[in-house]
Amino acid sequence: MAFETTRPLRFGDCDPSGIAYFPSYMNMLVGVTEDLFAAIDWPWPRLARERNITTPTVRLDATFVHPGFEGDSLTFRCTVARIGRSSLDLHHEVSAAEPLWRAEQRLVATTLDTHRPVAWPDDLRAALSRYMEVEHG
Amino acid sequence: MAFETTRPLRFGDCDPSGIAYFPSYMNMLVGVTEDLFAAIDWPWPRLARERNITTPTVRLDATFVHPGFEGDSLTFRCTVARIGRSSLDLHHEVSAAEPLWRAEQRLVATTLDTHRPVAWPDDLRAALSRYMEVEHG
Amino acid sequence: MAFETTRPLRFGDCDPSGIAYFPSYMNMLVGVTEDLFAAIDWPWPRLARERNITTPTVRLDATFVHPGFEGDSLTFRCTVARIGRSSLDLHHEVSAAEPLWRAEQRLVATTLDTHRPVAWPDDLRAALSRYMEVEHG
Amino acid sequence: MAFETTRPLRFGDCDPSGIAYFPSYMNMLVGVTEDLFAAIDWPWPRLARERNITTPTVRLDATFVHPGFEGDSLTFRCTVARIGRSSLDLHHEVSAAEPLWRAEQRLVATTLDTHRPVAWPDDLRAALSRYMEVEHG
Repeated sequence: MAFETTRPLRFGDCDPSGIAYFPSYMNMLVGVTEDLFAAIDWPWPRLARERNITTPTVRLDATFVHPGFEGDSLTFRCTVARIGRSSLDLHHEVSAAEPLWRAEQRLVATTLDTHRPVAWPDDLRAALSRYMEVEHG
Repeated sequence: MAFETTRPLRFGDCDPSGIAYFPSYMNMLVGVTEDLFAAIDWPWPRLARERNITTPTVRLDATFVHPGFEGDSLTFRCTVARIGRSSLDLHHEVSAAEPLWRAEQRLVATTLDTHRPVAWPDDLRAALSRYMEVEHG
Repeated sequence: MAFETTRPLRFGDCDPSGIAYFPSYMNMLVGVTEDLFAAIDWPWPRLARERNITTPTVRLDATFVHPGFEGDSLTFRCTVARIGRSSLDLHHEVSAAEPLWRAEQRLVATTLDTHRPVAWPDDLRAALSRYMEVEHG
Repeated sequence: MAFETTRPLRFGDCDPSGIAYFPSYMNMLVGVTEDLFAAIDWPWPRLARERNITTPTVRLDATFVHPGFEGDSLTFRCTVARIGRSSLDLHHEVSAAEPLWRAEQRLVATTLDTHRPVAWPDDLRAALSRYMEVEHG
């Protein structure tokens, strides 16, 4: 099952050339990831408070296929590609009327105080696997 | 020759977990690219006005090795990996006391009005090649 | 009648001290104003295209009463305080469980090309007055 | 004595209407305030670590007189208008070729953990007064 959510592409997300400013896309992407964790009932403030875990991005590989324009309604479709010991690989597809961009993102569970990797707790691992991509044979 | 510039990592670039917020890094990266074009005497407003060209990012592949902290002084080192017909591949290395992150970025010269790829004018191509990576044999 | 909308206060809107970063609040405020114009059927891209009008902010007076925290659900309540020849005065109140901040904002209708003030077209003036504050005697 | 610093107005600070996006100005303003504290040898990370103090903005009153354009070199001129028990009133003037905008900003010294106001330590108060506006009779 994919996690889906929508975002308006706002005036403030666009640049003087008239298209989406890609760092604003990255800000949205973090927000979508935030919503994914909230959807499995582990919003980040709870994850920090109860498990001392934060989830920084260690890899981001994005391809921008078509420019986004002010007023576009963006659909973010996110699936879990792989859950490692402390890593989480997400695949994002973002579209308006047509596909606009896609990204591979790797998050790592780290401790809030030392910023060192830590294993995903089993309940979180199980909850995240809900959004795992399913191979169709 | 590499293009080098520095940036302070500010309070406003960091997140509640206490480290650099990666979309802020991306905003800096665009600014560094902007400075690169200014360094070859083609600041973007001039490029837009005189050549009708804008340079959106179509690919960004970033790896974050160590977290950046508020107060870090960041050194950005940027080289041109390849200049295609309308593409420009940049390699970025960002460090404080130690290497923090690196990125491969592809820009494409596009027309301001139609957002379609356009060939790099010869003078721009020549100017950009100043920052080409040199192979040491 | 007030224009109301909600926004999550996200991880990326907060700073290393753990509270909302006020420039992120300002970014949200622009988005709320954008939504107000969409609500009267004049989304900004249409306003630019059909009337050559953009609406920059010329005055912003904000008071931050309580800090906002990651995960807060913010309610923005916006009313029109006054419509001048080319100005529009908005009053904003932003609350979570309690009032967090408020702002007086003045926008000015300006031409897209020269950035000079221009009178609000009558139909826009009429549409905006829908959100005028009503005095209760 | 005024605290002065400069900032380029970048592509990423401008909006689709072609002028400075005011929330980006606010982000710069926070950075200028950050630099002011660094100039008195109390960079914010040190202030947090050694004194448990953070300095959120509780009031911001800004007037935008002329639009800023991509490529403008901005000069920020900041003076201390008043130092209260825990408040700090700053006056900012921002100009390129001509004055662009000005702002009155009130910061409050607060504890990092409870976000409650705390009195400015005497040494900080003395250091900040270096940038106090001087009345000329």
